[in-house]
Amino acid sequence: MRDGRAARFLRETPLWKLQPPALGLDAAEGVELWLKLEHQQVSGSFKARGMMNRLLAHDIPASGVVVASGGNAGIATAAAARALGVRCEVFLPGVSPEAKRARLRALGADVVVVGEQYADALAACLARQRETGALLTHAYDQPEVVAGAGTLGREIEQQGGLPDSVLVSVGGGGLIGGLAAWFEQRSRVIALEPERAPTLFRAREAGEPVDVEVGGVAADSLGARRIGTIAWEITQRQVRDALLLPDEAIRAAQLWLWKELKLAVEPAAALPLAALQTGAYVPRAGEKVCLVICGANVDPASLA
Amino acid sequence: MRDGRAARFLRETPLWKLQPPALGLDAAEGVELWLKLEHQQVSGSFKARGMMNRLLAHDIPASGVVVASGGNAGIATAAAARALGVRCEVFLPGVSPEAKRARLRALGADVVVVGEQYADALAACLARQRETGALLTHAYDQPEVVAGAGTLGREIEQQGGLPDSVLVSVGGGGLIGGLAAWFEQRSRVIALEPERAPTLFRAREAGEPVDVEVGGVAADSLGARRIGTIAWEITQRQVRDALLLPDEAIRAAQLWLWKELKLAVEPAAALPLAALQTGAYVPRAGEKVCLVICGANVDPASLA
Ligand SMILES: Cc1ncc(COP(=O)(O)O)c(C=O)c1O
Ligand SMILES: Cc1ncc(COP(=O)(O)O)c(C=O)c1O
Repeated sequence: MRDGRAARFLRETPLWKLQPPALGLDAAEGVELWLKLEHQQVSGSFKARGMMNRLLAHDIPASGVVVASGGNAGIATAAAARALGVRCEVFLPGVSPEAKRARLRALGADVVVVGEQYADALAACLARQRETGALLTHAYDQPEVVAGAGTLGREIEQQGGLPDSVLVSVGGGGLIGGLAAWFEQRSRVIALEPERAPTLFRAREAGEPVDVEVGGVAADSLGARRIGTIAWEITQRQVRDALLLPDEAIRAAQLWLWKELKLAVEPAAALPLAALQTGAYVPRAGEKVCLVICGANVDPASLA
Repeated sequence: MRDGRAARFLRETPLWKLQPPALGLDAAEGVELWLKLEHQQVSGSFKARGMMNRLLAHDIPASGVVVASGGNAGIATAAAARALGVRCEVFLPGVSPEAKRARLRALGADVVVVGEQYADALAACLARQRETGALLTHAYDQPEVVAGAGTLGREIEQQGGLPDSVLVSVGGGGLIGGLAAWFEQRSRVIALEPERAPTLFRAREAGEPVDVEVGGVAADSLGARRIGTIAWEITQRQVRDALLLPDEAIRAAQLWLWKELKLAVEPAAALPLAALQTGAYVPRAGEKVCLVICGANVDPASLA
C-alpha cells in the first residue's frame, strides 16, 4: 500500500499520548492513553486507507469505480478516485440529505439518486457495475479494504510502539478486522458497539453473522446491519471482548472530546472514550491503551 | 516550568508533519509543513503555558489570582488556578457575552462584571489587586508569561528538530516573544497579524510601541491595542518579517482547516495557513516551516 501513490494520497495522522486526567479518568498507576487522531485522515475518516488500497490493487476501467454509500465509505471512494484521476459514480437513495450529495459532487463524483431506501441504491449500483464493468468498492467486506484499515495498526506501532490494548468501534467490521489482523495476539483488540447497532455482539451470541436492527446516535457510520464475513473470520480468532455502549455515554464522550480536548469528531469516534468513562473497560496498572479516533464527518454545529 | 506540577497540568500537543498538497499548496521541492496543534492545549490555547508558569513562580496569597480577560488569557488563568486549588477572580465589562462568563464560572472562577468597556474592567481589576494583594496575571506582558510561551518552542524542537521558519500570530506579543527568545537566530520567526489589528507592524513603522485601532475576525484574541514591552524588545532583535493578512484570507484558511484537515480552530490560529495560501509567505525549496495552531476557542457552529 505504501507505494508512492498511496503515500502521496494518505497522511500519517498524529498519535497523541495523554495522561488519564486529561480524559477525566482516575485510572490505575501508570496507565497511558494514546489517541490515534485518524479523524484527521484524508476524507475525514480511516476509510481512505481501505478505499485507496482497493483502487491501487486493480487496473481501473474507463468506467471508473462505483459505490453505494453517502457516508464515509462513499466520501473516501470519491476522494481516492479523484486523487487517481478516475471516474467515480456514487449511488444514493432518495432519503439521502442534499448536504451529502453536494459533498460528493464537490469531490468530483457523479451522484445517482435512485429509489427510496439504501437497498434500492445498492441494487442499482450492482446492476450498473455489471453493465459497465466499473470497479466496485464495498464499505467493509473486501480484502483490500480490510488490509488498508490494517495499515492504521502498523502506523500506530511505528509511532508509539506496541500498545497493550486497542479500543475500536465496529460497524461492518472492516476497521477492527484490519487492526486485529495486524496486532494478532500481540495487543488486545477490544470491539465497541452502540447498544443500538450490535452487529458483532449479536453474531457472537448467535455463533454466526446475523442481521440486526440498527439505530441510535452513531447509525450513520456504525449502522451496518450484519458483520462482514472477513471481519467475522478474523475477530473470532483475534478478538476476545465485544462491549456495548449506550447512546447517552457515546454522546457525552463526543461532547467531552470537543469541550476538553478540542477534537471535533463524530459519535462513532467517541466509543473508546465512552468505554473508559463508563467503566465498561477498565485498564490495568501500567496499561498502554490506544483509542482509535476514527472519523470527523460531523456537523460542527451539533457540538455547540 | 517542567516541574511535576506544570507537567501534570499541561499537555504535550501533537506536531503534525504534512506535505504541501494537504494544505492546498503547490510549494517548492522538499517543503515540509509542521502543524503544531497547540489549540489542543489545556484551556484550548497556548495561554495555559504562560499562566501556569506565572502562578508557579509565586507564592499565591489566600486572595488568589486576578485577571481582566474573558478570552483565552482569562480562561487559561482560571484553569491554572483551579489546577493549583487557588482562588481566581476574573473582571469583565458589561459588554462581555454570557457564554464567556458561564465558561469561566464552570472553571471555578468568581466573575465580576463591572463598567461598560474593557478599560473599566481592567481598572477595577487593578484596584482589586491593590486591595487584596492577589497575584495579577497579564495576558502577554509579564516575563513568566512570555517564558511560558517559550516552552512551546522547546517542545517543537524536541518533537521535530529545528524548523527553518516559524509562522506565528501576534496580538500583544507574548507568544512571539517566547518563541523568538527560544529560537533566537536559529530559526526564522515570522510575525503575522490581521490588517485590522497591526500592533507589531505599526510599532515597527513608528520605531516604538504605539496604540492602534483594532477590529476584524480575530479581534477576540489578536485585539491587543499595543504591542507589549517585552515582546517589543525581543522582536526588534529576533524577528525580521512582520506580515499583514486580510480578514477574508484568514477566514478562508480557518474554513480550510476544518473542511480538509478536521481541525476546528479560531481565526487567530489560521493566520499561518493564510500566509501560505495567499503567497504572503513563500517557503524556499527544502524549507521546514512550522505553523503554530494557537487556539480553538471557537463556536463550532461558525464552521458549518
Ligand atoms: C467514522 C467511522 N468509524 C467506524 C466505522 C466502522 O467501520 P467498519 O464498518 O469497518 O466496522 C465507520 C464506518 O463507516 C466510520 O465511518
Ligand atoms: C488563540 C490565540 N492566538 C494568539 C494570541 C496572541 O497572543 P499574544 O497576545 O501573546 O501575541 C492569542 C491571545 O490571546 C490567542 O488567544
